[in-house]
Amino acid sequence: MAVGKSPRRKDAVAKVTGRARYTDDLSMPGMLYAKYVRSPIAHGRVLHIDTQKAQSLYGVEAVFTFEDVPDKRFATAGHPYSLDSKHTDIADRRLLTGHVRYQGDEVAIVVARDRLTAEAAVELVQVKYEEYPVAVNAQTALKADTPPIHEGGNVIGSHRFEVGGMLEKAFEEADEIVESHYQTGVVQHCHIENHSTYAYMDDMEHIVVVSSTQIPHICRRIVGEALDIPWGRVRVVKPYIGGGFGNKQDVILEPMAAFLCMKLGGVPVKIELPREECFISTRTRHSTRSNIRAGTTKDGVLKGLDIEIFSNTGAYASHGHAIMGAAGSKSCNLYPRSVIKLKATTHYANIPTAGAMRAYGSPQVIFGIECLMEEAARAINMDSLDFRIKNVARQGDINPLKEKEILSCGMVECLENGRELIGWDAKKKAYKNQTGHLRRGLGVACFSYGSGTYPACVEIAGARLILNQDGSVHLQIGATEIGQGSDTAFCQMAAETLGVSFDNIHVVSTQDTDVSPFDTGAYASRQTYVVAPAVKQAAQELKAKILAYTALMTGQVPESLDLIAGNVVFANRPDKVVLPLDKVAMDTYYHKERGGQLTADVSYKTRTNSPSFGCTFVDLEVDIPLCKVFIKEIFNVHDSGVIIHPQMAAGQVHGGLAMGIGMALYEELLIDENSGYIYNNNLLDYKMPTCMDIPDLGCAFVETREPTGGYGNKSLGEPPNITPAPAIRNAVWDATGVKIDEIPMTPKTLYRHFAKAGLI
Amino acid sequence: MAVGKSPRRKDAVAKVTGRARYTDDLSMPGMLYAKYVRSPIAHGRVLHIDTQKAQSLYGVEAVFTFEDVPDKRFATAGHPYSLDSKHTDIADRRLLTGHVRYQGDEVAIVVARDRLTAEAAVELVQVKYEEYPVAVNAQTALKADTPPIHEGGNVIGSHRFEVGGMLEKAFEEADEIVESHYQTGVVQHCHIENHSTYAYMDDMEHIVVVSSTQIPHICRRIVGEALDIPWGRVRVVKPYIGGGFGNKQDVILEPMAAFLCMKLGGVPVKIELPREECFISTRTRHSTRSNIRAGTTKDGVLKGLDIEIFSNTGAYASHGHAIMGAAGSKSCNLYPRSVIKLKATTHYANIPTAGAMRAYGSPQVIFGIECLMEEAARAINMDSLDFRIKNVARQGDINPLKEKEILSCGMVECLENGRELIGWDAKKKAYKNQTGHLRRGLGVACFSYGSGTYPACVEIAGARLILNQDGSVHLQIGATEIGQGSDTAFCQMAAETLGVSFDNIHVVSTQDTDVSPFDTGAYASRQTYVVAPAVKQAAQELKAKILAYTALMTGQVPESLDLIAGNVVFANRPDKVVLPLDKVAMDTYYHKERGGQLTADVSYKTRTNSPSFGCTFVDLEVDIPLCKVFIKEIFNVHDSGVIIHPQMAAGQVHGGLAMGIGMALYEELLIDENSGYIYNNNLLDYKMPTCMDIPDLGCAFVETREPTGGYGNKSLGEPPNITPAPAIRNAVWDATGVKIDEIPMTPKTLYRHFAKAGLI
Repeated sequence: MAVGKSPRRKDAVAKVTGRARYTDDLSMPGMLYAKYVRSPIAHGRVLHIDTQKAQSLYGVEAVFTFEDVPDKRFATAGHPYSLDSKHTDIADRRLLTGHVRYQGDEVAIVVARDRLTAEAAVELVQVKYEEYPVAVNAQTALKADTPPIHEGGNVIGSHRFEVGGMLEKAFEEADEIVESHYQTGVVQHCHIENHSTYAYMDDMEHIVVVSSTQIPHICRRIVGEALDIPWGRVRVVKPYIGGGFGNKQDVILEPMAAFLCMKLGGVPVKIELPREECFISTRTRHSTRSNIRAGTTKDGVLKGLDIEIFSNTGAYASHGHAIMGAAGSKSCNLYPRSVIKLKATTHYANIPTAGAMRAYGSPQVIFGIECLMEEAARAINMDSLDFRIKNVARQGDINPLKEKEILSCGMVECLENGRELIGWDAKKKAYKNQTGHLRRGLGVACFSYGSGTYPACVEIAGARLILNQDGSVHLQIGATEIGQGSDTAFCQMAAETLGVSFDNIHVVSTQDTDVSPFDTGAYASRQTYVVAPAVKQAAQELKAKILAYTALMTGQVPESLDLIAGNVVFANRPDKVVLPLDKVAMDTYYHKERGGQLTADVSYKTRTNSPSFGCTFVDLEVDIPLCKVFIKEIFNVHDSGVIIHPQMAAGQVHGGLAMGIGMALYEELLIDENSGYIYNNNLLDYKMPTCMDIPDLGCAFVETREPTGGYGNKSLGEPPNITPAPAIRNAVWDATGVKIDEIPMTPKTLYRHFAKAGLI
Repeated sequence: MAVGKSPRRKDAVAKVTGRARYTDDLSMPGMLYAKYVRSPIAHGRVLHIDTQKAQSLYGVEAVFTFEDVPDKRFATAGHPYSLDSKHTDIADRRLLTGHVRYQGDEVAIVVARDRLTAEAAVELVQVKYEEYPVAVNAQTALKADTPPIHEGGNVIGSHRFEVGGMLEKAFEEADEIVESHYQTGVVQHCHIENHSTYAYMDDMEHIVVVSSTQIPHICRRIVGEALDIPWGRVRVVKPYIGGGFGNKQDVILEPMAAFLCMKLGGVPVKIELPREECFISTRTRHSTRSNIRAGTTKDGVLKGLDIEIFSNTGAYASHGHAIMGAAGSKSCNLYPRSVIKLKATTHYANIPTAGAMRAYGSPQVIFGIECLMEEAARAINMDSLDFRIKNVARQGDINPLKEKEILSCGMVECLENGRELIGWDAKKKAYKNQTGHLRRGLGVACFSYGSGTYPACVEIAGARLILNQDGSVHLQIGATEIGQGSDTAFCQMAAETLGVSFDNIHVVSTQDTDVSPFDTGAYASRQTYVVAPAVKQAAQELKAKILAYTALMTGQVPESLDLIAGNVVFANRPDKVVLPLDKVAMDTYYHKERGGQLTADVSYKTRTNSPSFGCTFVDLEVDIPLCKVFIKEIFNVHDSGVIIHPQMAAGQVHGGLAMGIGMALYEELLIDENSGYIYNNNLLDYKMPTCMDIPDLGCAFVETREPTGGYGNKSLGEPPNITPAPAIRNAVWDATGVKIDEIPMTPKTLYRHFAKAGLI
């Protein structure tokens, strides 16, 4: 049995020894390097651009400005294509622009023989701008007299629903109605590997793009769309990737690399962003402002939730139009027996473009909900944990939005489990009535999340298995390993179903859209969920072929055989080896009269989307005069169905917790309200927590068995970072009595609130 | 209809524009370069080797000698693996050797940071040798007191058969028995691209070898065998290739590159041979000495053929043990109604290793047979063309060796066709009784050849087709494009069967053994023959899936639909489009409730081997005092079944004719009989004909339809170079009356013969 164990990651040695080659480690003879000329202002228009000096610099091959690129708008969001023309992404990008919309927008690009020359040439491009008024947030962007950032105005989309009944009626039945405003900041993914891509052509028809992307097959489509090339002529290759967290679920550099390569006779052209450019010109997490109301009966029945939220997508749409809808919809599984009304508005602003980021809007929406749940519980003098336990989803509940039954749900068990682990009841008592500078507090917050994007988008995955001569098996998948460990999980699945040892499953980690099975990529915590049935079916098919072939070789009946641990055995006498798999394999390849290479090639569409659940518990100490939070204990408890690889699952939880702590306490991209100037586009000034800031992280799993999961599994990748922020905020309230409704809760923010509350 | 047309080669633009990247065009950051230390003597033993100075040179990473490599012997011949332990290749190689067997044998290897340093370091390795007596040909190699070149003696294999009756009885029935000795020289393939390979590791388990090889899947196996690695952990990648002609059907550099890479921590290590090393240390064509007898009745019925032949495989076995068996066996289809006895002996000698070369021994065997047929015809005063027409194979004949019926045969039509085209009868008359310095002559020679290696070896091919969103199709094949045009032919086949335009078939030209369908590679003129059924079956399967899916979309019955020119149409109303293929494809990918990526993945074993036939006609002028032959007209007529791509087929014939002319008149690797010293290891001293030496080349096809060929086709790649040499020799005899039984017929050779005949 391979599933449920923690074998060594397939890429572990490659990565720790430095043998793994990432896009930026790759180069080709004659490769050229491109660098963008970026706008120093946040909003305006290019009046004049002079590239003469740059073009004359020795080593510069070409300079292209916004005037040289096709007048073609395309969408960068890494969504599956939709057959429904009303469900398409917003095409608001050109390769370069004369109308600059954030500080860093791309007006020209220089191509040179080496990086240093390209950098020098960028400085030589002279641009004159006409400046426009800048809008960096909803307040200004949505004002009637603010100049539109794009034709059509600054609202890019809105989502509304009201499900589970009528809110008005629910609030009538409530004894208490609580309400609050919440605010979340702009944060950046800060994946280790910056964006990097290069393109080359071997002939006049086909363009090859090698890229650090989460979504090679979608990237192929978007390059095709952006450059008007039939998609079959675009090939995208994904090498090892050093993280993405959603930022590589956008197609940012690839169309430009392809364009430059095609313009320059097919020679390889590389674009790699340094950290400073990656910070501002890739994607960020949407900052939000929300107003939420909740109604509860005095005995703790949550009757209704009313969520109004503004989401700031920045200069370009990217995923913006989809994120609030997705986040709102995913939250409906959490308190499914209450009425839920959502009104979300997404708008442009003159700040860096926000896009997909781990949990895709849920941390922002859930932050508000789970802060407000604390408030509701307090309003009726109920322990907030008890309040949650009373209202959260249970197996058999119906999602009020999708009207689908929740087939597996360990939410209550997660909360009960956490209560035990953290010693909730004893500590709650102990932390009452604290005084002094140092005060302890407990917090909890819970979430629900989806497993994939169905039914909003198509869910398709592919797996191909090839039996090698030595009895090992190659696994080709369309889904992408981006550091999360999916390659390893898929190998476990294949080993489990096939009856071959994990060590004898070789995974093809590089996706190549010419030959890899189709899959839309790594996002939406979809991969283990939607790829599992494809791998399982391929393994079943290959196993059936192996048994049938062994039967042919030996005169046995296929039904009497099984494949266990790399041996074909008698099904009812598993200790009796009929033939080792390598002997069977050699015969399939080399017998002159029979056989053939055995493979299985499966494409599978998933038409379910089961919610996973979980919660964060935190015990922290607030140093009031220092305005600093010290986390003493923090852990998540997850119901992600059956856990495929406990060690990697814990790794995901630890990473998500750390990311959530960063979002709660430290991280924010600081943008000047008047000028749109970005103050901290680097890892020195942007305060990402380091190992010095992060406490020991804990996790526990409540293993339900999701019937629609190939191996009983549900999503796990993104959820861990949804609830640290509200749990920490709730614990700070618990410790200090001060309710802080904005993140990050930096010392500066805490000072403001503590001072206002008279604590300092 | 795509088959039978001549669309532009898939790789044409890539190759003429220089965009195609060959192994040597590729490099990786940190790549090291390796260079062999080669023996200056042809036979001996290393007494002492000192690498100290080389290792101290700045930039040298490592030096390995024969003492550092595994004591493991392996076989380099690019044959499919055999399950029959009696049918394995001869494992007589180590990675390096202390017992040197030819001038150029490899005793050590230097690895450095760049090529120049590696070259300099090679000069610094000091080696002392003990010299052994040298044997360069059968006479000395097979003498009892000659020291053995390998343990076990100098004979590496012998083949004998006597089929179609008893030779003795056949000769009793003959009126005339003719006999002669023949001799063929050592020639080299002279492919444009020299051997080049590099290896790297991304982790500790898997080794990647990128190589200019005809046989990526076999290469994977041999690297695994040579280094004792499970084959599943070896990945071989084949980029564009600049020719092979059989020389890249040996696994020469790859195991060493893999060994060095593994020893040096997985860093990329490249070995590329300059022309001088490629000449002597890769492979050559076996030189042969034969004695042949033929018995004929006076009215021209060939009764029996008795062939005794010695084949010189040089320092190592390579393909040597197999070639004479294959060549003898393939010749049995030519005169299948006569008794044929063959006794072939293959032996070692202290000369460069001979291996596979275009037509795999047939040019040597057929040279003797077709020279002797001329003699037999003259002995009974019969026109040699009439004599051949009387005796060559006809459809329905039974191959006396394999006892299989010849299902298609246009041999007589080829000869009749050639007779017309060259104006045989008129010229024969006109060229009678010539005198003077310049004399014209006519010659003809014919051949039969196989289509693949069955039943000697397994014949397995694979094809995978993927329907893209834009209605184009990717074709993945295991068979290798090495310049011969196979990629284009396979695309034609896929287009033909699928009903998609040739332009919309994208071929994956790079084989990657991790993911490419299994196929043993480019050799034995097998590919169009054995791959055709795999492509056809895959195309049929994909087409059936497309029609079934369209039926699902439209409510039609699949049987009522057909796919023509990229549209799904009504089968009985082909002008009426049901849906264009791209619309169907988009639905398969993106419909949320149905479908999935459509692919077809086929592995197919061929269990037939149909002979192709053909002949060379030549009209030439001999300048007797100059001892020079001027070819006035030369062409081949081929029965290769249905011609897939007439223009490429003509290209193959032209190339083969040129190669055959080179072998007949110019090319020979000159080796000192006493020392084994090689005189002309370069293209300046080795007289390969250039375009200045080659006349206009002609060709014609007699298109039979081979029922076992997927598209009626049979072999064509190698056959064109089988018969130019004997046809030219016969024409020289015709012109001058001098019978020359050795090739190449250089001016030096002609002078010796003309002087002896008293002509000069």
